[in-house]
Amino acid sequence: MSRGFYIGRFQPYHNGHQSVLESIAEEVDEIVIGVGSAQLSHEVDNPFTGGERVLMITRSLEKLTTPVYVIPIEDLQRNALWVSHVRSMTPPFDVIYSNNPLVVQLFAEAGCPVRSMEMYKRDTHSGTAIRRLILAGKPWEHLVPPAVVSVIREIDGVKRLLEIAQDD
Amino acid sequence: MSRGFYIGRFQPYHNGHQSVLESIAEEVDEIVIGVGSAQLSHEVDNPFTGGERVLMITRSLEKLTTPVYVIPIEDLQRNALWVSHVRSMTPPFDVIYSNNPLVVQLFAEAGCPVRSMEMYKRDTHSGTAIRRLILAGKPWEHLVPPAVVSVIREIDGVKRLLEIAQDD
Amino acid sequence: MSRGFYIGRFQPYHNGHQSVLESIAEEVDEIVIGVGSAQLSHEVDNPFTGGERVLMITRSLEKLTTPVYVIPIEDLQRNALWVSHVRSMTPPFDVIYSNNPLVVQLFAEAGCPVRSMEMYKRDTHSGTAIRRLILAGKPWEHLVPPAVVSVIREIDGVKRLLEIAQDD
Amino acid sequence: MSRGFYIGRFQPYHNGHQSVLESIAEEVDEIVIGVGSAQLSHEVDNPFTGGERVLMITRSLEKLTTPVYVIPIEDLQRNALWVSHVRSMTPPFDVIYSNNPLVVQLFAEAGCPVRSMEMYKRDTHSGTAIRRLILAGKPWEHLVPPAVVSVIREIDGVKRLLEIAQDD
Amino acid sequence: MSRGFYIGRFQPYHNGHQSVLESIAEEVDEIVIGVGSAQLSHEVDNPFTGGERVLMITRSLEKLTTPVYVIPIEDLQRNALWVSHVRSMTPPFDVIYSNNPLVVQLFAEAGCPVRSMEMYKRDTHSGTAIRRLILAGKPWEHLVPPAVVSVIREIDGVKRLLEIAQDD
Amino acid sequence: MSRGFYIGRFQPYHNGHQSVLESIAEEVDEIVIGVGSAQLSHEVDNPFTGGERVLMITRSLEKLTTPVYVIPIEDLQRNALWVSHVRSMTPPFDVIYSNNPLVVQLFAEAGCPVRSMEMYKRDTHSGTAIRRLILAGKPWEHLVPPAVVSVIREIDGVKRLLEIAQDD
Repeated sequence: MSRGFYIGRFQPYHNGHQSVLESIAEEVDEIVIGVGSAQLSHEVDNPFTGGERVLMITRSLEKLTTPVYVIPIEDLQRNALWVSHVRSMTPPFDVIYSNNPLVVQLFAEAGCPVRSMEMYKRDTHSGTAIRRLILAGKPWEHLVPPAVVSVIREIDGVKRLLEIAQDD
Repeated sequence: MSRGFYIGRFQPYHNGHQSVLESIAEEVDEIVIGVGSAQLSHEVDNPFTGGERVLMITRSLEKLTTPVYVIPIEDLQRNALWVSHVRSMTPPFDVIYSNNPLVVQLFAEAGCPVRSMEMYKRDTHSGTAIRRLILAGKPWEHLVPPAVVSVIREIDGVKRLLEIAQDD
Repeated sequence: MSRGFYIGRFQPYHNGHQSVLESIAEEVDEIVIGVGSAQLSHEVDNPFTGGERVLMITRSLEKLTTPVYVIPIEDLQRNALWVSHVRSMTPPFDVIYSNNPLVVQLFAEAGCPVRSMEMYKRDTHSGTAIRRLILAGKPWEHLVPPAVVSVIREIDGVKRLLEIAQDD
Repeated sequence: MSRGFYIGRFQPYHNGHQSVLESIAEEVDEIVIGVGSAQLSHEVDNPFTGGERVLMITRSLEKLTTPVYVIPIEDLQRNALWVSHVRSMTPPFDVIYSNNPLVVQLFAEAGCPVRSMEMYKRDTHSGTAIRRLILAGKPWEHLVPPAVVSVIREIDGVKRLLEIAQDD
Repeated sequence: MSRGFYIGRFQPYHNGHQSVLESIAEEVDEIVIGVGSAQLSHEVDNPFTGGERVLMITRSLEKLTTPVYVIPIEDLQRNALWVSHVRSMTPPFDVIYSNNPLVVQLFAEAGCPVRSMEMYKRDTHSGTAIRRLILAGKPWEHLVPPAVVSVIREIDGVKRLLEIAQDD
Repeated sequence: MSRGFYIGRFQPYHNGHQSVLESIAEEVDEIVIGVGSAQLSHEVDNPFTGGERVLMITRSLEKLTTPVYVIPIEDLQRNALWVSHVRSMTPPFDVIYSNNPLVVQLFAEAGCPVRSMEMYKRDTHSGTAIRRLILAGKPWEHLVPPAVVSVIREIDGVKRLLEIAQDD
């Protein structure tokens, strides 16, 4: 049985992530999804809590037949310990998917080869771009799975982002 | 929709936990399971990593039709912040199940009533009792779900516990 | 009895803070003042220790008849836990005064409404502006209460700020 | 001007502390009171939060004419840094009062002589003894200043201690 | 070239450690010595600082021709990350010497076999035994290298241990 | 006997550091070298681990007759505690060498005068300049001691730096 690992900050989870995970689902038996910087929230660049992001992801992948584990990963601020930290909080995995150069390098030094993925419309489908649209009051809902729209509405996330983005 | 919360250290997850969770599953629409002291492992009282415990629990609940979120929760060592910490790492929940007096008190002070549960054969079905049986080389497999036996075998968990329990 | 809460970094405490606190004193029976980022000092943007700032504030408010509690609050780097952290370190309070959007949002999510205040000459009466004047060797003493001038002199604070602002 | 320093955990603040502080008040111009292990609460040995203890102490010393600064001090778990930590969170002080051997030694190594004090009925007037009386349902109110009785009542502290002391 | 690793708390460094390290010196080209729990000091079980222990060890091994690296290692309180933590703070090593079951297990899980060593008069040559002798005012100097006696004298270590061992 | 202290981040150790240390070696009996931000690695500005930097320095100073202690120092993020932190992890020292204004100020406030040093070709012999040369694929080896070239080769450090410097 093979288990794949994929990590992101998911601020918020969007169609680019969804498309990548649907591809990974065809290659492995189970997927472990790490929710990075899980302790951060209520910041313009990190508006949603770890738990809110777990909810967005799990809901969006409900129809996937491949089982997923969605795990919040808190920052350690020590790159040399990061692979061990991730491994201690997740079920064992043997395939790693990432295009992030640091993630690739850290796993490579730990002896774990990393597979790269084709990314889906990188410029519009990014957390940064979506947060900017929300702040500008422009449409963003088409860039994320419907479940993410529901979660953000449920937690009053647009109001939160607008509020904390105000100048002091 | 109601979401229930249940927390334990699950060192290891056993039939008592399974029986409690099967009861909770009949009362709520979704269950959030917190894996406490997630950062601890390789200790006689905490032999398994957070991720290994996530795997034990998820596997054991595979047949449950109620969706579950299994979330590692690291210790903060600050009781007054614990409820906020748990809430930040988990999807929102509205019903809390616990017999632990500290958990009951902390949620009560936060304005969240806690439901108590009937416990299942408390003396034999406890992590402490099971770890003692493993250390004594006696049968313990009948006290945990079959998936837990598999996980402990896969990670060579009995050898780990025996090794770290040796005197220096 | 009502107790009001007000928080700032107070690097240094100045006439704008003093004026705000004198207004609050007319509305509540007691005031809790949180000294934020209490663990930071000896930085260009945070030159004074938590204890030095406690001294500046307490001395400046000596003539106020409303009792004040001046409490250093260390950063947690976890916004979702910040309200609980503040509450754990302070006497219970029921009225919050702040114009800081993050503070407003965090207390609002915790169910505590926040009162905004009229600010006093915001452009000149700011910690940033005062630190810049000190660094430029220009007069700054008229912008802070006399007790703050004494404390900064006593701890040789101008020399400290000039020294740490030098390029390496 | 001389400023004295006194530290304790104050779980809870009692007549022994009060008597010591009244003596210190006769020797110095101002008193800095450190509330140790400020981050701990909701434990059988540490039931009250840092902020609740600040309130107990401040209220009990209201009639003292000597000004007091009551400062929560979080644990660092590094004895060699403790004196610097305390000094960074408090107004400068020049006289230290303690009978605690570790406090005496740490300040002595930092070059600060420590004055010892006569203790007041040490066996009955101790936090441990008072917590035991509360747990046993016996009278304890005569061992603490009236303000402490009020604070503990206001926060429902007896119920908290009884609840968390229950066996799991 | 082979580099060996050996770790202890060295409270204090004694003839048993010296004898083990002299044996290791015959098997490898260089030795990395980790000073564990480096952040602890001024406790009855951990009286000496990390730096004082670095000094004791380096001085005692001055005549060794094998180069040694003496590195303080702070505790992480996360066993699953400990091997990565040690490796990040030390020059790369390929041979590990330990009789400590936890150290053996953690390195074994990381894929690094550990060599055990014959221990030298384990009952008398232990940090615990030596600290007890010092506290009892009995001779202990013959159990440690002469350089350790000098360092403990220089830092007034006997007085420190006696002071902190007093009852409060 | 006099012991000198010198601290840097050494990302990487270069001829400027070497020249400074050779001068210090003529003035003191022993040198304590602190490797700052020891916990950082795998960042564009901090590519090498604490242990790798310990190795670079020790190897480069092998021919020095003055004994050196090379000690990793983790960041505390609390300037007011930094001098105590450094002192707790190092053998006692009485002479401090630094041109860094913050280091100078922190030791000065602790009552320890700091000696400044003449710096050697500051613009080309800096960690920043050398990391930029490596990233640009230009010659950098002449700016560091030969031992540093070996260590960086042994750990495949150039590839690491190039990899983590890529855009995500």
